[in-house]
Amino acid sequence: MASNKKTIFSIVPIGGLGQIGSNMTLISGQTESLIVDCGILFPNEDSFGINYLIPDLDILENASPTDLIITHGHEDHIGAIYHIIEKVPQIKVWASPFTSELIKKKLKSYKKSIKINLLIQKKEITFSDFSFIPIQTNHSIPETHGLFFKSKKESLCFFILSDFKFDNKTPYESPMDLNYLKNISQNFEKRVLFSDSTNIKSKNFKTPSEADLIAPIEDILSKNNKRVFFTLFPSNIFRQKSIINASKKFKKKLIPYGKSVENYLETAIDLNLIENDKSLIKSIKNTNCDGDNLVILISGCQGDFRGALRRVAWGEDSTFKIKKGDLFVFSSTPIPGNEKKVSQIMNKIYEAGGEVITNADCLVHASGHPGKDDLKILYDTFNPTDVIPIHGESYLLHAHKKFIEETYPDIKTHLIYNFNSININQSLEVKIEKNESKEPWLIHGKGILLEKENLRQRRKMASSGLLFLSIKIDSIGRKRVNYSLEHFGLPQLIKNQEEKIGWLINNFFNKTKVKTFDKSKDELKIELRKFCNKVIGYKPLVFIHFI
Amino acid sequence: MASNKKTIFSIVPIGGLGQIGSNMTLISGQTESLIVDCGILFPNEDSFGINYLIPDLDILENASPTDLIITHGHEDHIGAIYHIIEKVPQIKVWASPFTSELIKKKLKSYKKSIKINLLIQKKEITFSDFSFIPIQTNHSIPETHGLFFKSKKESLCFFILSDFKFDNKTPYESPMDLNYLKNISQNFEKRVLFSDSTNIKSKNFKTPSEADLIAPIEDILSKNNKRVFFTLFPSNIFRQKSIINASKKFKKKLIPYGKSVENYLETAIDLNLIENDKSLIKSIKNTNCDGDNLVILISGCQGDFRGALRRVAWGEDSTFKIKKGDLFVFSSTPIPGNEKKVSQIMNKIYEAGGEVITNADCLVHASGHPGKDDLKILYDTFNPTDVIPIHGESYLLHAHKKFIEETYPDIKTHLIYNFNSININQSLEVKIEKNESKEPWLIHGKGILLEKENLRQRRKMASSGLLFLSIKIDSIGRKRVNYSLEHFGLPQLIKNQEEKIGWLINNFFNKTKVKTFDKSKDELKIELRKFCNKVIGYKPLVFIHFI
Repeated sequence: MASNKKTIFSIVPIGGLGQIGSNMTLISGQTESLIVDCGILFPNEDSFGINYLIPDLDILENASPTDLIITHGHEDHIGAIYHIIEKVPQIKVWASPFTSELIKKKLKSYKKSIKINLLIQKKEITFSDFSFIPIQTNHSIPETHGLFFKSKKESLCFFILSDFKFDNKTPYESPMDLNYLKNISQNFEKRVLFSDSTNIKSKNFKTPSEADLIAPIEDILSKNNKRVFFTLFPSNIFRQKSIINASKKFKKKLIPYGKSVENYLETAIDLNLIENDKSLIKSIKNTNCDGDNLVILISGCQGDFRGALRRVAWGEDSTFKIKKGDLFVFSSTPIPGNEKKVSQIMNKIYEAGGEVITNADCLVHASGHPGKDDLKILYDTFNPTDVIPIHGESYLLHAHKKFIEETYPDIKTHLIYNFNSININQSLEVKIEKNESKEPWLIHGKGILLEKENLRQRRKMASSGLLFLSIKIDSIGRKRVNYSLEHFGLPQLIKNQEEKIGWLINNFFNKTKVKTFDKSKDELKIELRKFCNKVIGYKPLVFIHFI
Repeated sequence: MASNKKTIFSIVPIGGLGQIGSNMTLISGQTESLIVDCGILFPNEDSFGINYLIPDLDILENASPTDLIITHGHEDHIGAIYHIIEKVPQIKVWASPFTSELIKKKLKSYKKSIKINLLIQKKEITFSDFSFIPIQTNHSIPETHGLFFKSKKESLCFFILSDFKFDNKTPYESPMDLNYLKNISQNFEKRVLFSDSTNIKSKNFKTPSEADLIAPIEDILSKNNKRVFFTLFPSNIFRQKSIINASKKFKKKLIPYGKSVENYLETAIDLNLIENDKSLIKSIKNTNCDGDNLVILISGCQGDFRGALRRVAWGEDSTFKIKKGDLFVFSSTPIPGNEKKVSQIMNKIYEAGGEVITNADCLVHASGHPGKDDLKILYDTFNPTDVIPIHGESYLLHAHKKFIEETYPDIKTHLIYNFNSININQSLEVKIEKNESKEPWLIHGKGILLEKENLRQRRKMASSGLLFLSIKIDSIGRKRVNYSLEHFGLPQLIKNQEEKIGWLINNFFNKTKVKTFDKSKDELKIELRKFCNKVIGYKPLVFIHFI
């Protein structure tokens, strides 16, 4: 599919397409490469100890990127930074002040520290044959940027705006400077746009403003003089601010509770994004946590197994026990896949006597992603010749493409997946190079890769239990074999059969002549597995040592 | 809390309240007990091999129920029948013809067969001090019944209507005879209602009719001459019928595909609920599965790991490979908790070149549960003095209670959970006896109970991997200990450390004097776990045998 004309840009999404998370894009000009973002993906199942997934980074070995540009501080954009630095230690990292602070804290937990270069809105950063300009946008975390790239020689620009919404009403930060975007882009012949697909199916065509939530939050606090727990995406600093301001207005005390909320709040205070009002913001140590007029900002809005909210809901928290009158406000929405975990939390709250308010009851959450009307503003401003839907599962990318084709028939839309390459040549033709997608890497423990095969082994153990048998070689051939047997994750019914298993082992060595230990091991394994299958209806794993 | 007055009825939901599934209720008159339904609950996580969960059945030992009444054939109402029969072998089972057939097939897989008594609409079944009348209702499976109980002496009746909707338009079966229900109930002084909470939060106040789906289904088939895959809850026989009829109308061939769809269709044909039109309904053997004008009724609408739909979507099916032009219609909705599994299927379909239609695009699915307007019809007809919200997670039971209190302030609503007992005494007072809820039993393999502790063991193995070490006792004290080491579910990084682990083991026995094997085992375990923690950041399970 390669064109004969020279490629001047190739853009390869390494993560974030066809999945929710691990956003990462490799951008190569003619002489230099850089990476935009390096996010993690959360595992589908909590059962295998996996902390997170990251894209397959082998591609970086040939590409040798010189720079890493971070658009904003969400985990699905910065979470994999330790792994990037391990792979490309000399890489130059760019981020805004708040994002830098988050990155530094993250790297500290890996005992790493790096220098981070400041990303400043509208301040151009130049490479040998291209440059880019960060343009600030609204989202659900402060200091989010779109990246406007332009070629030095060719009449080509492209704009990567992975997470955004247009919020003209928020009191907390200015909306994107659309005039500026229009001015710098419209003289280019080719204008390629990479744009967010997250909310393409949302019934909210225009994503609500953070400002729209202030009245409902105040209303809740004005009516409740008992304890009100607010759970939210803790990185949503402006939401925290709205709740803190409302708490102040109605003379409440506010307790941040849970590691994640506390960390983000601390960072926001350090950077003067939130005022450190010590008469308002309290710790559990110096507050009567059982009293009235308390607002608790609590971590764990996704029902996370180790989250503070789950602990409280399950009655396992030592500080907060749910009592009648407690109100829990979900100023958040379940990330797809977490619906059940979140509804379980709500069930537990009700069972313990609490009440729940969600976005279905009143407007207590606003997404950070664009509805169709937000997208239209972007298309009308940037006036793209080509769009590549990014940031979304495959069915969302597909729906985004359909929406563009129906609404803007002149725009060319390119549906691509991770590891496909968008190549733009000297004639400004956009060509898609289909490359085989690569499975993400599983990370467990201190940044350690767990190979797929070893995950499969975990799955096997988890789904069928196991038997350990060690046999003393010297005793084989005697009347009774000397062995030790242990089982794990198997029903009591198997324990009840230990005598029979012993008989089976002895019988095996009486009737079978040991040729090689390997062969005997395999044969005995088969017999033991068959026996268990008869008793319980499935075959456990069997490990045998001859010693 | 017990009243001094004699209890004439006690009703104990053993499952189905505060959860989705395992519906089961123990009803005791003064001398006899019976059970209504005996369903299973599906596990939250697929990782531990658990096939299903059932309520803790120990309660049946004292209650000694004589009869088991099945309201309809869904798994969350019949799935645990094998376990009931094991526990109470002499129990008399009642079910409608179609439900009986489903139960018989299920028991066959456990190599059991039983006699089932016919449950006939409006035919009263009498016990010593009470009787009940089955009243047919619409739902999402044929032959669903509500059960109308009445006391012989006291002016008391109660109506258990766990799953229902009112469907006046469906061509497939008559709606509930509301006049009849009104006539038999209104002379009783006390009228207690147990009613479905599943859809209390639905924005569809009136649940659509099965008839409403016929036009959209026909529309889809009239416009598509390629392959159309319909996935649905396979027990929804009338939905199957609508798709089969539409296929006939537009001259398609229809292939049922997947065990579950095939089984239910076979049962429906056996009972003349669906006509066996051999010119229309084909098997994969005698059909060109790659051809046009094919309708495939496919199992696995919940994204089930072993379902046909998942196999096809993942490209792992030997018969159906997705190609451009294939359309997949989801005539179903994800059960809470399955959202992600279902959206993954959609992603895979799009990635393979297929298209998807869901209920968000056009009306291709109707729930079998009541919206608020359906509930109002029920309340207006039965005119209950007391309502107990059933069939739903806690937050739904709570919302149902709130709805009744706001809409029918004269009705008394009782919020209860599993194992609470509703006691009605001679003065017709309704009292709630709070009993400790019991955790459901985990079933894996051929109906075998897996104890909670053994599930915890599985979780441990799955989340941290393991080391298995056996040590030859005779060799302890020598320069080199004779040992055998194996690991499972651990990263390659640990394999690379085998030499060091060997050194650690030898060093342990050189420096430590073995006092007792148990003590040494514990000490060595700690050292090995510590070592691994240093290398990978977590401690695997360690099993040691001295032999």
